[in-house]
Amino acid sequence: MMAYDLDLGYHISMRQTSLFTRTRHEAPKDEVSKNARLLIRAGYIHKEMAGVYSYLPLGLRVLNKIVEIIREEINAIGGQEIQLTAFQDKKIWETTGRWSDEVVDNWFKTKLKNGTELGLGFTHEEPLTVLMKDHIRSFRDLPTSAYQFQTKFRNEARAKSGILRGREFLMKDLYSFSRDDKEHLEFYDKAKQAYRRIFDRLGIGGETYVTFASGGSFSKYSHEFQTVTDAGGDIIFVHEAKKIAVNKEVLNDEVLKDLGIQRSDLVKKKAVEVGNIFSLGARFSDAFGLTYADEKGAMKPVVMGSYGIGPGRVMGTIAEIYGDEKGLIWPDTVAPFAIHFIGLFDPIGNVKKSADGLYEQLTERGIEVLYDDREISAGEKFSDADLIGIPKRVVLSEKTLAEDCLEIKDRLTGKVEMRKISEILI
Amino acid sequence: MMAYDLDLGYHISMRQTSLFTRTRHEAPKDEVSKNARLLIRAGYIHKEMAGVYSYLPLGLRVLNKIVEIIREEINAIGGQEIQLTAFQDKKIWETTGRWSDEVVDNWFKTKLKNGTELGLGFTHEEPLTVLMKDHIRSFRDLPTSAYQFQTKFRNEARAKSGILRGREFLMKDLYSFSRDDKEHLEFYDKAKQAYRRIFDRLGIGGETYVTFASGGSFSKYSHEFQTVTDAGGDIIFVHEAKKIAVNKEVLNDEVLKDLGIQRSDLVKKKAVEVGNIFSLGARFSDAFGLTYADEKGAMKPVVMGSYGIGPGRVMGTIAEIYGDEKGLIWPDTVAPFAIHFIGLFDPIGNVKKSADGLYEQLTERGIEVLYDDREISAGEKFSDADLIGIPKRVVLSEKTLAEDCLEIKDRLTGKVEMRKISEILI
Repeated sequence: MMAYDLDLGYHISMRQTSLFTRTRHEAPKDEVSKNARLLIRAGYIHKEMAGVYSYLPLGLRVLNKIVEIIREEINAIGGQEIQLTAFQDKKIWETTGRWSDEVVDNWFKTKLKNGTELGLGFTHEEPLTVLMKDHIRSFRDLPTSAYQFQTKFRNEARAKSGILRGREFLMKDLYSFSRDDKEHLEFYDKAKQAYRRIFDRLGIGGETYVTFASGGSFSKYSHEFQTVTDAGGDIIFVHEAKKIAVNKEVLNDEVLKDLGIQRSDLVKKKAVEVGNIFSLGARFSDAFGLTYADEKGAMKPVVMGSYGIGPGRVMGTIAEIYGDEKGLIWPDTVAPFAIHFIGLFDPIGNVKKSADGLYEQLTERGIEVLYDDREISAGEKFSDADLIGIPKRVVLSEKTLAEDCLEIKDRLTGKVEMRKISEILI
Repeated sequence: MMAYDLDLGYHISMRQTSLFTRTRHEAPKDEVSKNARLLIRAGYIHKEMAGVYSYLPLGLRVLNKIVEIIREEINAIGGQEIQLTAFQDKKIWETTGRWSDEVVDNWFKTKLKNGTELGLGFTHEEPLTVLMKDHIRSFRDLPTSAYQFQTKFRNEARAKSGILRGREFLMKDLYSFSRDDKEHLEFYDKAKQAYRRIFDRLGIGGETYVTFASGGSFSKYSHEFQTVTDAGGDIIFVHEAKKIAVNKEVLNDEVLKDLGIQRSDLVKKKAVEVGNIFSLGARFSDAFGLTYADEKGAMKPVVMGSYGIGPGRVMGTIAEIYGDEKGLIWPDTVAPFAIHFIGLFDPIGNVKKSADGLYEQLTERGIEVLYDDREISAGEKFSDADLIGIPKRVVLSEKTLAEDCLEIKDRLTGKVEMRKISEILI
């Protein structure tokens, strides 16, 4: 029924008659964001409630491809993958003064049967710092870093931006542990470079700006990765020539001087924060006593950094930037399938027979194909293909079959070409 | 620093000097279960609170291998992977009468800022049935099935069994949707066979019995997959010759007659329920109006089934069954690495140089290696290897190097053999 690849652990190809989701003409009436409207209509996600979305087969494939690109790049800079928990121990968060709802206004909290309060993690600096006390002892253990892909829970007052800002959402959070500021900044810079590669590979590198933002108590600046789109909730000032930006909140003469730029060269834009990197200094190490013995045996606090990317937010951002009036358009690297293969069947069954064979041959070559083998009109198939947004639409019809050809349409450019079947199957 | 495989998306091999976790001699004082004591000491998991554990790099590797085996087998029977949400809408659960804490005694609940109550999913029949109403219309859409790997939250009064019974834990839950009982039972049987393959591949097939249990309202029996271990909280009666068992709760004359077995052939054992499969009939379809149009256009309720496996519980069960007084012992299929490669370095550095080269050669061949390149005593290395429980311990020392050999010890059997390096590298 479905071809699957044991190494990848997922179906490399799929017949559309097997896919349980169907497209729809209308999004839910209460859904105002472009990204969620398109993703729901195309059968990628399902709205459980405001700011809470389930991922359907096509949506999970896209999300997993985004996750995989991030994982590869974070592994490449030495990150070790772990999985912390949603439930948070009140005592730990009281230590840093972040348990109170007056300090952190977006906690979700719950209770054990005995009345003990638990938090649902909105971030994980506190528990990971405590955990690292079991493992970091000496300078030999540093630098090191750990990251996870984990569901975060944030009690947002409003949630009207689809998967750009959820109450429950997936996050990649990486934390680094270094001996001193110098070692920390080396890792920080590696992470910054990895983030650039990630957003380039995800297809939004061109619209994404390293943006100077407030650094909090421990460094002058933090760095946000802001992707320009009208759907964005942040205001940034872009310096196009230098490919950097400044967050509205820190735009002042001192910052302009630090960056060596003129206010007149900046253009105001709306943007989505798809990633951010922070220096944490010893804020958490000091609170929990995360120290190490240096070469001379002196105990010193570990210097930390944190580095976040929201894979779901990236997916929503791509939908906002690339989506058009007909539907979604995915970059090759994150598309649920490489090819949307459409058979326009004739009554005798010649096209169906050839299409079935071609589907298997493409799959055997490791090409990810969604094969529209449904018995519906060409018009419905084409409009579904536009909505689903797979990069290449490949059509086999009586006409193309007579010429041993396939019609290939690029979803992004709209360019159409006829290609010999034998060329495609090389 | 670490070799990583872009296709697999994780480091195939790792130097132990890079692994941030360290082993420890003592488990936390409040930890009474064998599985958690060993897994914590070996650096696989971290206890956040009772019944809530984080997974560290070695532990996450094992968990992911378990997940991958389950995913492959569920994909092979046509399951389509999705990802539902933790947050649950009160209204949906009120429809089936399962919102009340008097009916379901292990809910965790929380609140939005506006006071709206939310549940944290302990299972997902309700939301998935509602979701499927958008996608199932006619007999052509059936049968179908969807599954997820998702964190479940269960407010257990007691949580003293390590990762065998958590308050927050990963679950694979599969749900099937069929036209009628006949079609449902065909899928049910396929799922049962898939479960047998899964537990065989996970290395606990021999100890795992298909166990007849209460079927609830819609079928005579459900089937549990019970793995025999003294750590188990369930009591089952095993029929060794037939390789089946009966759960204590349904052991009566009628059941014995149905199964054609004698009470005298049954042996009472403690066991852990590592999986279960249920026929749900139309309980949820009726509640939410999940119907389909049959060939004649008549509307009929969809027949459902649900199928669970807890990957973390499986991991804990393996630790319970295989673990010995020295530590963990992993089956090949789920071990974090295939080989624990130990270099016993000489002062001149000859062994180190050869070991470094050999590590790279093994990695290039796609063999997953944990390379103990630490500058500590042979005794410490050996006791860590026993604790961590990788199936093969491979030692390079001055003595073995002089003979161009490696010493290979099987963790399970303890058998030791000398093998030529050239043989290993074929």
